[in-house]
Amino acid sequence: MKIDVLTLFPDMFKSVLGESIIGRAIQNNIVDINYINIRDFSNDKHNRVDDYPFGGGPGMVMKPEPIYRAINSIKTDSSRVIYLSPKGKVFNQSIANEFSSEEHLVFLCGHYEGIDNRIIENYVDDIISVGDYVLTGGEIPAMTVIDAVVRLLPEVLKSDESFMDESHYNGLLEYPQYTRPRDFNGYEVPKVLLSGNHKKIEEWRRYQSIKMTYYNRPDLIEVEDLSEEDNKTLQDIIIGDKNKL
Amino acid sequence: MKIDVLTLFPDMFKSVLGESIIGRAIQNNIVDINYINIRDFSNDKHNRVDDYPFGGGPGMVMKPEPIYRAINSIKTDSSRVIYLSPKGKVFNQSIANEFSSEEHLVFLCGHYEGIDNRIIENYVDDIISVGDYVLTGGEIPAMTVIDAVVRLLPEVLKSDESFMDESHYNGLLEYPQYTRPRDFNGYEVPKVLLSGNHKKIEEWRRYQSIKMTYYNRPDLIEVEDLSEEDNKTLQDIIIGDKNKL
Repeated sequence: MKIDVLTLFPDMFKSVLGESIIGRAIQNNIVDINYINIRDFSNDKHNRVDDYPFGGGPGMVMKPEPIYRAINSIKTDSSRVIYLSPKGKVFNQSIANEFSSEEHLVFLCGHYEGIDNRIIENYVDDIISVGDYVLTGGEIPAMTVIDAVVRLLPEVLKSDESFMDESHYNGLLEYPQYTRPRDFNGYEVPKVLLSGNHKKIEEWRRYQSIKMTYYNRPDLIEVEDLSEEDNKTLQDIIIGDKNKL
Repeated sequence: MKIDVLTLFPDMFKSVLGESIIGRAIQNNIVDINYINIRDFSNDKHNRVDDYPFGGGPGMVMKPEPIYRAINSIKTDSSRVIYLSPKGKVFNQSIANEFSSEEHLVFLCGHYEGIDNRIIENYVDDIISVGDYVLTGGEIPAMTVIDAVVRLLPEVLKSDESFMDESHYNGLLEYPQYTRPRDFNGYEVPKVLLSGNHKKIEEWRRYQSIKMTYYNRPDLIEVEDLSEEDNKTLQDIIIGDKNKL
């Protein structure tokens, strides 16, 4: 996969995507990530990339021409141009899956009050929001989407990493994890996990997943998608019968 | 404000938070951000920070002791310890506002299959998820929360930046922005924005905000919170009367 990031702050990315799993994917040539400075496409003698908004109001708007030229410098027929903005569709795991099958992703990072709307309407394929909060620019959201997408590419995760924190894969939050020591500051590992009884461990983990999802993110539970047994577990949790396991 | 980030990858942060508005806040001593490598708190001769999960299963779990020691090395009575995880409460602008009034934020970034649950239960104040997607670790989510929080601190934004992309402040998405040139590749700026009629411009922007929110994020609209006029605009949009303005 090829990724181009169009930004006014290419240096922000240098240290982030070179580390850990994404850095390894780059070294193994599974993904090629380039950073393009939109300012390099300003024809203005002062390299200006922003201007006052028509109609008045505070802030500056990023001018359309430098962005247009920057997109055109790398766009091909197989490119998908993604603009990061709180105005967009909310990013989730299914969009990450969809993006992971593309050949070429182009991320356009806005700053200031936003970018000229004619770019968004005519030269962008997707407007993506990483969540309902305001950030100083599109750079950290672009890193977020790149991280979520690249880890899904074939051969990026090692087999022992491939089930890492797969909350949101099966619709339920992950069960709690414990490792050595058995006694840490007087807090003990739940006995069932030391029992060696795989069926009981599986039941306990399923119960914990359903319970955690019910308390923290009830909006994720699709009751009609639950198995009969999971549904019974959920009902038990709801009516307060929490001593079952 | 003081911020400490506990991570296995402190280098990831170097270039990100030094740029743009957050970098300026650091230079102006409005915020002090430190990165602490959890690995430095391993007493293991191999500096190991992870181990196999009790009860079996793929992946490795971050051990409790190094994290506990790392937290204790910086925690005071006024610290708020935030663990980034998809299992947590979904981050939003109101949580950003709440965090921005704290004296000391500690961000704990997980990796591998997650961290030992005894840390989460006993030494963490908030579990925060930046959205419903799986990332390779908690580092990019920590950057996200730091960026959203630091820009809210007093004197961080210049007056002309202070209304930047304030989607999610008033519950509606922001109206489209335009700047020069009036004609860009044959696409013209909406005439009303050139009219100089501030009342008409305000009406057009409000209409566009409501329309964009209705089409992209209907879940954000709280009908009971809308003014009578906004509610009428929304009804007009819903019944397809889009030629009003």
